[in-house]
Amino acid sequence: MKMEKISGGLTAVPGVEAAGVHCGIKKNGEKDLALLYYPRPARAAGVFTRNLFKAPPLQVTRDHLQNNVRAVVINSGNANACTGEQGRQDALETTRLVAERLQVSPQEVLVSSTGVIGVYLPMGKLARGVEEAVTRLSPSLESGHDAAQAIMTTDTVPKETAYKIQLDSACFTVGGMAKGAGMICPDMATLLGFVCTDLDLSREALQEALQGAVRRTFNVITVDGDTSTNDMVLLVSTGTSGIKVEPGTFLWEGFQEALLQVCQELSFRIVSDGEGVTKVIRLVVQGAPDYQTARTLSRAILNSCLVKTAFFGEDANWGRLITAMGYSGAVFDPAAVEIFLGDVQVTRQGTGVIFDETRAKKVLEKREIPIYIHLHAGEEELTSFGCDLSYDYVTINSDYRS
Amino acid sequence: MKMEKISGGLTAVPGVEAAGVHCGIKKNGEKDLALLYYPRPARAAGVFTRNLFKAPPLQVTRDHLQNNVRAVVINSGNANACTGEQGRQDALETTRLVAERLQVSPQEVLVSSTGVIGVYLPMGKLARGVEEAVTRLSPSLESGHDAAQAIMTTDTVPKETAYKIQLDSACFTVGGMAKGAGMICPDMATLLGFVCTDLDLSREALQEALQGAVRRTFNVITVDGDTSTNDMVLLVSTGTSGIKVEPGTFLWEGFQEALLQVCQELSFRIVSDGEGVTKVIRLVVQGAPDYQTARTLSRAILNSCLVKTAFFGEDANWGRLITAMGYSGAVFDPAAVEIFLGDVQVTRQGTGVIFDETRAKKVLEKREIPIYIHLHAGEEELTSFGCDLSYDYVTINSDYRS
Repeated sequence: MKMEKISGGLTAVPGVEAAGVHCGIKKNGEKDLALLYYPRPARAAGVFTRNLFKAPPLQVTRDHLQNNVRAVVINSGNANACTGEQGRQDALETTRLVAERLQVSPQEVLVSSTGVIGVYLPMGKLARGVEEAVTRLSPSLESGHDAAQAIMTTDTVPKETAYKIQLDSACFTVGGMAKGAGMICPDMATLLGFVCTDLDLSREALQEALQGAVRRTFNVITVDGDTSTNDMVLLVSTGTSGIKVEPGTFLWEGFQEALLQVCQELSFRIVSDGEGVTKVIRLVVQGAPDYQTARTLSRAILNSCLVKTAFFGEDANWGRLITAMGYSGAVFDPAAVEIFLGDVQVTRQGTGVIFDETRAKKVLEKREIPIYIHLHAGEEELTSFGCDLSYDYVTINSDYRS
Repeated sequence: MKMEKISGGLTAVPGVEAAGVHCGIKKNGEKDLALLYYPRPARAAGVFTRNLFKAPPLQVTRDHLQNNVRAVVINSGNANACTGEQGRQDALETTRLVAERLQVSPQEVLVSSTGVIGVYLPMGKLARGVEEAVTRLSPSLESGHDAAQAIMTTDTVPKETAYKIQLDSACFTVGGMAKGAGMICPDMATLLGFVCTDLDLSREALQEALQGAVRRTFNVITVDGDTSTNDMVLLVSTGTSGIKVEPGTFLWEGFQEALLQVCQELSFRIVSDGEGVTKVIRLVVQGAPDYQTARTLSRAILNSCLVKTAFFGEDANWGRLITAMGYSGAVFDPAAVEIFLGDVQVTRQGTGVIFDETRAKKVLEKREIPIYIHLHAGEEELTSFGCDLSYDYVTINSDYRS
């Protein structure tokens, strides 16, 4: 299999048109409405937040996934969450506005929102935005980039990626975009992620592929431990390549690999662009008995305020890693644990070892810090991404609504 | 029942002597070794952290609780955690040093440590400290105060309290001291708490009373969501009053009430003195189906970085409360939730209501912020304490070891 990184994101995939405009939800004049359009009816699968408070657009989108998909409309600046029946009507009305302009059925339109919780959508602004977005739809890379910008909230950079894959005689594309910088600790899916391929896949196959990829990408990142009400990742197949793929085939394996790569890049960029982030922590748990144990441990470590502030301060305070592992709820043998900061071993058999502080400091000075934890209890290995907790995180989040 | 607050802490209880000295573990010259002595053999009960990594002193103390208790030795500045077999030998040796000087059995000495994880105890310094502490033992309030100071780490104030209780013809005392400011999210017990009464209670009765009190005091506070490896609360009865108490009696109820009061004050002061704290959040969950649901919800809210930074910024961002509730894992009906910030209602039936931002701001400007959340699902009510996340928390924790 040959996998080549190509420019752009969603619109690098044949069969996708996009637009991103400013409709007035964001007060600062930045783009706040993205529209994706599939000229040929596409199929989609989605994963959604496990938060008990699910925003109305998620409920509407989940219902609509049963049909062919013609468009996705996404606004930023307002999450349309905790808005009750009115919020649901607004989400439905949004799909109707798009459907009318694109001459498709409202049931073929997916809807997604991100931003402040508990405020009703300004439907007048949204209607004008949809009108403008439709006129700007285009398959160009620039349009895809506009859409990636329009879904940003506290993100400082848009997140897009795309790959062209050659596998025997089959040639296909997988591309995607995502947003997210705060309230990031996805469970089931994360914030907004939109991934697309021009392969022809059934809804069931899409769902299986997406869940497999999300498990090792979006679901193993965290910025602040807060699982949003609006997390959603959608995987769409436009079928434009004309190549049908069934689970279990050689091509299916190749597609899964490409999908994993795209999701990994997008989720890594979310952490890297996390609110106030100065360090990205790449935590590799090895020798775990199973996925869940590795994930539970990793989550506890990467969500610990004490671990995060220690990394911000470039302090090799491994006692805080140990502490977080111990209260995580995961079951393991404390006396078997080995920990390495980069190539510097700090713990052997659950006990501290004398280590070279200067060498450890060198590891901690870098922007990306690798940590290896070995449990000696099995074969499972899981890589998760987290970040530090800096003064800027406090600044950004102490005054978010205004 | 008449309950009167009196001066002092542990040594306000008849039958307790104390001392606090500097032995050289802390580099800044502050007191770092506390010694408690019971001239008359006392009985004790303890609750310990649920962290899988349990520090060696906890293991030694748990074993020794089966015997009468004559002394407790506590050092700060070094947690003697993740120190393996050497750590265990050091904890045992500490009890021997104390026993020898006090002419009691090592099995009658309890030991407790708090501070940096993963460093071996400096036994020479400790031995000299014990020697000095024994010469300074006294039942005075000043000595109790010295001990309360000697167990501090990042605490800025010592935490002591005591009450004299008159119940019919019985007169007794309950007093205690505690420490803790960071790595505070106790599960089972918290950091170091030492509570004492001059009543005469069996070990089983002490254990029952302590667990009941801890459940609604130390176990419902959090500073940073990090459950320490060294959390421990000990309850000692000196029996000096000569009053025997059996569970189920009128006197037992009175004792439990007094114990709850002492534990509540100590645990509140831990949060109030939390690292970098500028706001204390008093969260009252009402109408919950049971204790566990209320606690799970409260924990998620009070440990959310987004909730904490919003309170630091005095921002009425209730969407973050909702979000934390939703991902907490607790089961409840989102559509029934009501939330009040002080007397300002912000959510009705799980949906935002228009509220007076000026009135909300007034609530948030205070140092102590009351939040009421009603689930309309039962009779359980639980009050928990948390705090905000400020720049100072980051400062304190980015460079803790040095």
